[in-house]
Amino acid sequence: MSILVVGSVAFDTVETPSGKRERALGGSATFFSFSASFFHPVNLVAVVGEDFPKENFGLLSSHGIDTRGLKVLPGKTFHWQGSYSNDMNEATTHSTCLNVFEQFRPEIIEEYRGSEYVFLANIDPDLQMEVLRQIKKPKLVACDTMNFWIEGKREALLRLFKMVDIVVLNEGEARQLTGQPNLMRAARMIRNWGPEQVVIKKGEHGALLFGADSVFISPAYPMETIVDPTGAGDTFAGGFMGYLAREGKADWKTMRRAVVYGSVMASFNVEDFSLDRMKTLSKPEINARYREFVEFAHFA
Amino acid sequence: MSILVVGSVAFDTVETPSGKRERALGGSATFFSFSASFFHPVNLVAVVGEDFPKENFGLLSSHGIDTRGLKVLPGKTFHWQGSYSNDMNEATTHSTCLNVFEQFRPEIIEEYRGSEYVFLANIDPDLQMEVLRQIKKPKLVACDTMNFWIEGKREALLRLFKMVDIVVLNEGEARQLTGQPNLMRAARMIRNWGPEQVVIKKGEHGALLFGADSVFISPAYPMETIVDPTGAGDTFAGGFMGYLAREGKADWKTMRRAVVYGSVMASFNVEDFSLDRMKTLSKPEINARYREFVEFAHFA
Repeated sequence: MSILVVGSVAFDTVETPSGKRERALGGSATFFSFSASFFHPVNLVAVVGEDFPKENFGLLSSHGIDTRGLKVLPGKTFHWQGSYSNDMNEATTHSTCLNVFEQFRPEIIEEYRGSEYVFLANIDPDLQMEVLRQIKKPKLVACDTMNFWIEGKREALLRLFKMVDIVVLNEGEARQLTGQPNLMRAARMIRNWGPEQVVIKKGEHGALLFGADSVFISPAYPMETIVDPTGAGDTFAGGFMGYLAREGKADWKTMRRAVVYGSVMASFNVEDFSLDRMKTLSKPEINARYREFVEFAHFA
Repeated sequence: MSILVVGSVAFDTVETPSGKRERALGGSATFFSFSASFFHPVNLVAVVGEDFPKENFGLLSSHGIDTRGLKVLPGKTFHWQGSYSNDMNEATTHSTCLNVFEQFRPEIIEEYRGSEYVFLANIDPDLQMEVLRQIKKPKLVACDTMNFWIEGKREALLRLFKMVDIVVLNEGEARQLTGQPNLMRAARMIRNWGPEQVVIKKGEHGALLFGADSVFISPAYPMETIVDPTGAGDTFAGGFMGYLAREGKADWKTMRRAVVYGSVMASFNVEDFSLDRMKTLSKPEINARYREFVEFAHFA
């Protein structure tokens, strides 16, 4: 059964030290879908405006992404504008025009309600819960969030956490959410709120996976050139969930590998603007980089 | 043959969220020596003042550290005062009284000149070179440095790099030295200046080891409580060099393990103020944490 993702499909206008792209295809659900689709079929639930080019539907479909859940509403598509300075760790947002995304009320079409793997990308936690109520019997549910909801909708977020298996967030969000600078303690607090596993993404420093009895500490794939970090976190989540769905299991060993596949996918995504690298990426390239990652990280 | 370390022996007055210690034993050569001594005998070259307590000589000696090279000069011992805020990643220096350390001209006593493993802790690069000229035929030489010398003695530092096998520095120093925010590129630049290997320490994010043909990306041991990060970098270097000296080889596989032993030693050191944790540490504890590290970091 497919992976369901609910999130944003957007235009990104991005400037980095490598250049600038105007209104390039982006959005959390887009990056997630593209990444996960290398491992497993994806059902996409999002909303775009009438200005969204038809060929993008084709692009998504050609990647095994079901776009029947991608609604077109009167108005314009979500448009984010931002830039990165030399250190590439944090984006400066110049403008966020939510447009049709502001009225997004995710409706899960009948064909998607049996999805076994569900990723709730960063949207209002009340909407994330609404999505879950429409799914029949998911096998594994993961969610992401952001500073905006941590500040403004903390209680809803904590209610959501009781309904998900895995919370995926970045280190800044983990610290903000828990008030804990130490990530081990932060993860334990989050796990105590409900989720069985917590993944903390640390960008160029790798990721941490916390489970009931253990922790997995993963470095990041060493990158020499980062063209555009936009979407890296969602691409990570896509690789992570995609791998779990393909394997059809979520034991600790599989989870650890899923984290590494997530890092591998993110490492490709940042090599070019928007989805440009993902468009040319092949499965043999993914597997080769995974093997290289093992080689770089191994010791005993 | 022993490891030779040349650096500072100091008093540290440190305040962290866990408390405060006044005039506790510290200094780069002290942290290095203590850490390395768990693996291999150490020859210590440094200078202290007449206020340096006699019992500290005994403490060092009882750890297999030869203190014949620890000179007592008229005057006071180097005294550093600093504090750490909640995030523990950077110290704020309140005062640095070099005292006798200002006149430090390291003389390598005859008995030490055959040392095969040499660690040049953070001192004036001209003095680091002077040390090397006094060593007969070292098997492996590593050096550290700091922002002060990168700013003020860059040319001497680059001359030194031609004479050492391994440069060990933290990520901020690597970026400052090379003007390269990307650590892969920074390491390549440094290797082009001479050293065969470069180790970049990233604190709570682990360490990177760069060699001729490969890179080793190591996460850090996950810590829940950091009492005092002072000396973590030198403790890392001590574990790294100590392990290499004990194994008597420096092939790539051994180097990788040495990086992990460095991280293990640093993880113990930050558990308490000054050398307090190192004083009670045992070899079985070190080996147990190394195995735990393998367990936390392994995937395939």
